[in-house]
Amino acid sequence: MKGAVLYGPRDIRYVERAEPKIIEPTDVILRMSATCVCGSDLWPYRGIDARSQPTPMGHEYCGVVEEVGAAVKTVRRGQFVVGSFFASDNSCAICQAGYQSRCVHAEYVGAGGAQAPLLRVPLADGTLVATPELPPDELIPGLLAGSDVLGTGWFGADAAAVGPGKTVAVVGDGAVGLCAVLSARQLGAERIIMMSRHAPRQNLARAFGATDIVTERGDEAVAMIKELTAGLGAHSVVEAVGTQESMMQAIRCTRSGGHVGFVGVAHGVEVPGQELFYAEVHLHGGPAPVRRFLPKLIDLVLNRKIAPGKVFDLTLPLEQVAEGYRAMDERRAIKTLLLP
Amino acid sequence: MKGAVLYGPRDIRYVERAEPKIIEPTDVILRMSATCVCGSDLWPYRGIDARSQPTPMGHEYCGVVEEVGAAVKTVRRGQFVVGSFFASDNSCAICQAGYQSRCVHAEYVGAGGAQAPLLRVPLADGTLVATPELPPDELIPGLLAGSDVLGTGWFGADAAAVGPGKTVAVVGDGAVGLCAVLSARQLGAERIIMMSRHAPRQNLARAFGATDIVTERGDEAVAMIKELTAGLGAHSVVEAVGTQESMMQAIRCTRSGGHVGFVGVAHGVEVPGQELFYAEVHLHGGPAPVRRFLPKLIDLVLNRKIAPGKVFDLTLPLEQVAEGYRAMDERRAIKTLLLP
Repeated sequence: MKGAVLYGPRDIRYVERAEPKIIEPTDVILRMSATCVCGSDLWPYRGIDARSQPTPMGHEYCGVVEEVGAAVKTVRRGQFVVGSFFASDNSCAICQAGYQSRCVHAEYVGAGGAQAPLLRVPLADGTLVATPELPPDELIPGLLAGSDVLGTGWFGADAAAVGPGKTVAVVGDGAVGLCAVLSARQLGAERIIMMSRHAPRQNLARAFGATDIVTERGDEAVAMIKELTAGLGAHSVVEAVGTQESMMQAIRCTRSGGHVGFVGVAHGVEVPGQELFYAEVHLHGGPAPVRRFLPKLIDLVLNRKIAPGKVFDLTLPLEQVAEGYRAMDERRAIKTLLLP
Repeated sequence: MKGAVLYGPRDIRYVERAEPKIIEPTDVILRMSATCVCGSDLWPYRGIDARSQPTPMGHEYCGVVEEVGAAVKTVRRGQFVVGSFFASDNSCAICQAGYQSRCVHAEYVGAGGAQAPLLRVPLADGTLVATPELPPDELIPGLLAGSDVLGTGWFGADAAAVGPGKTVAVVGDGAVGLCAVLSARQLGAERIIMMSRHAPRQNLARAFGATDIVTERGDEAVAMIKELTAGLGAHSVVEAVGTQESMMQAIRCTRSGGHVGFVGVAHGVEVPGQELFYAEVHLHGGPAPVRRFLPKLIDLVLNRKIAPGKVFDLTLPLEQVAEGYRAMDERRAIKTLLLP
């Protein structure tokens, strides 16, 4: 089969790769229904996370189970499934506490490269969630979103302790930030402030439930959030970028006693301890334990309560994966859906 | 009157100071029953937090109300009261959320210098908690502890989400760390691991409820905590020192999904964002909102359920305050009680 491989900065190619095989008896092989490009894929694409050798790309996936390992108990051939970018046994103490992304047996599913027609998923029983029946095509993008971008946005909102009556601010208008807006709305937030200066993203944020748009950045954004919250700051702030500037903006937008949920993969971030001490906010984040939220997210999509698939504003055949990356890199697209 | 004044590194003098007066109508003047030296007083004492001019010292206090401002409504002359080192209105949104230390009108009570026979306390109604009657002398140290060291240890445990069934580790065997042990016991922790290599502090930790003592430090301490917790790390870790080493030790001792409560005043601490991201712990701390916990803490002391006054292993008359600092600086004393 062919699949996406990163050869160097901005050099993605759709090339011949070995077909995935069952390695462990707990594996399954999926036939991809849809996959996509993640904002976090842009770190290695841009050469910021350098790769020393050609690397299969992609970690977001949904599809139909094609082959099942001998020890797989609950997942069956022919089922439509969605899973997280981290495989998990879903039974260890860490998983039971809701942190499947840090499962003691966690394995990065993306190592297999999901931007391809077939994918090996380890620990299938603990990782995959099946839909009751094969979903209609128009719901596939929303279900795919559950695999990472929606699960991550939801975790950001959860980590930021979003809830009824709260004012939420979102730093980062990428697909994850937009999904955090959608999640905050579902979690009952009273007011949702999206920080964005891009009209299409502002519009999608509004469609997802944002009540306010702030176009300022840095200190000016902080001042604006304070102005909108009686000088106190937001109760809950989701950081969905991963830079020093975005992290500090998030911390400074949060009122004392409030919560920062950070889901942007931190790059070069150093949090000054003394400022954090006197800010007295809660800080929590990391790779989203998507598996914790997947059953609920799939249910919301299948019942058409949410339409996270709207974050995909560009759909391409898988062989045009390189254009998919380019469009996101140049911010021509929010997020690229790839169809095998 | 005389009071403690810091003139420079390791130069504390008991010298003539102006008697405090009512300035705002919401103030009261207290006659000190007991005060003490805080671990955080050692930062300026050692010259690490330099002071540009002679500075009245002390921020822990309890005593009898001597004079009451015209706008004070609930606090009455003659009452025995305990208060936090931060005055608070206890009515703003931040206070109502339990963060009185960051009250929109917060004022540092220690600015007046509590190591003296009299102290002005601003925002008396929102800051002070009165006992039902004058307490017996033997409970004064325990009540004084509520003012900071116990309130801070309790907040550390609360911020670390200590609760039934949890394994708790405490980094820092000063009075705050010891009070965190006591607090963790009260909050129902199953296992409480104190990191200490000082026999008297180990003994007090055990008396307060520690089930295990770890004498290792740094990476070795982390390895030992992992060994004691099936490789996972503690659920809840209290950081009660404030250095880079102690903060990283705390984060690394905590399991993913677990909680770090940090109450050591951070000095030169930089938390690496990427490590925090992949550690996936909750991080929360700051100046303890003591006022939130004071009614409960006072109740526990008055009912002799806890004896936090045991952290005072040196009692001196106030005029010997300099020796009180020296003994703590040289680790001859855990904490010095000062009697006017």
